[in-house]
Amino acid sequence: MLKAKIYSVGKTKEAWLIDALAEYETRLQAFLSLDWILAKSEDQLEALLAKESYFICLDPKGTVVTSEQFSSFLFKQFTAQGSRLSFAIGGDLGFSSSIKSKAGSLLSLSSMTFTHQLTRLVLIEQFYRAVEIQKGSKYHK
Amino acid sequence: MLKAKIYSVGKTKEAWLIDALAEYETRLQAFLSLDWILAKSEDQLEALLAKESYFICLDPKGTVVTSEQFSSFLFKQFTAQGSRLSFAIGGDLGFSSSIKSKAGSLLSLSSMTFTHQLTRLVLIEQFYRAVEIQKGSKYHK
Repeated sequence: MLKAKIYSVGKTKEAWLIDALAEYETRLQAFLSLDWILAKSEDQLEALLAKESYFICLDPKGTVVTSEQFSSFLFKQFTAQGSRLSFAIGGDLGFSSSIKSKAGSLLSLSSMTFTHQLTRLVLIEQFYRAVEIQKGSKYHK
Repeated sequence: MLKAKIYSVGKTKEAWLIDALAEYETRLQAFLSLDWILAKSEDQLEALLAKESYFICLDPKGTVVTSEQFSSFLFKQFTAQGSRLSFAIGGDLGFSSSIKSKAGSLLSLSSMTFTHQLTRLVLIEQFYRAVEIQKGSKYHK
């Protein structure tokens, strides 16, 4: 079983987000379990990240990847890191330079800015798509 | 009042998508009204688009833009097109070359592939963000 920790800022108060994340977590449960760590502020997020030995930052200014490249990256990283990975979703102003220099990778889900909530949904859909790409299923033609 | 037609394929069966789209449509209602046109197949989508005189295609292989660039593009286009615009969300295989050659613009929301459902949510959030950028509000710092 693969495990991913995802650090973000904010609460999960929107009912639609709870439902959408639950749908993808159910679809993923045989392959990947997710642990959401929600900080109260960006300062707290960075303090939590500082304790992680290895993490991947998601930032609009990171490396642009296709879903196929993300799938390949994800499975290589899970293999290299013993089936456990940590991801961090940046705030409006991105990460501090000290966090960026400590990050294992800096990836972009889009050059556009999304809310933290929408980024969480986009990320979980890409996790699910990455698994389906790896399996060669029809989900990702 | 600005009006946008959005052509896509599929149904809106997910409760979370209905709720999330409704939330953004309510937030947008003073500025922009949306008309969703859902085709049953990609062939039907292209047949409907062929009748439109001007439309913007959303495709992972289109021009990459930031949210600020999208906002600027959107308001210029609304001005040029008499406050009415049409958008089309492509399928897994993208649009046919005849549709692409007829499109006013080809834009990318992400180099990643999203489901049609998620693309609709990302697009409506970018419409809302575009309005807030134009207004200079705190939503988009």
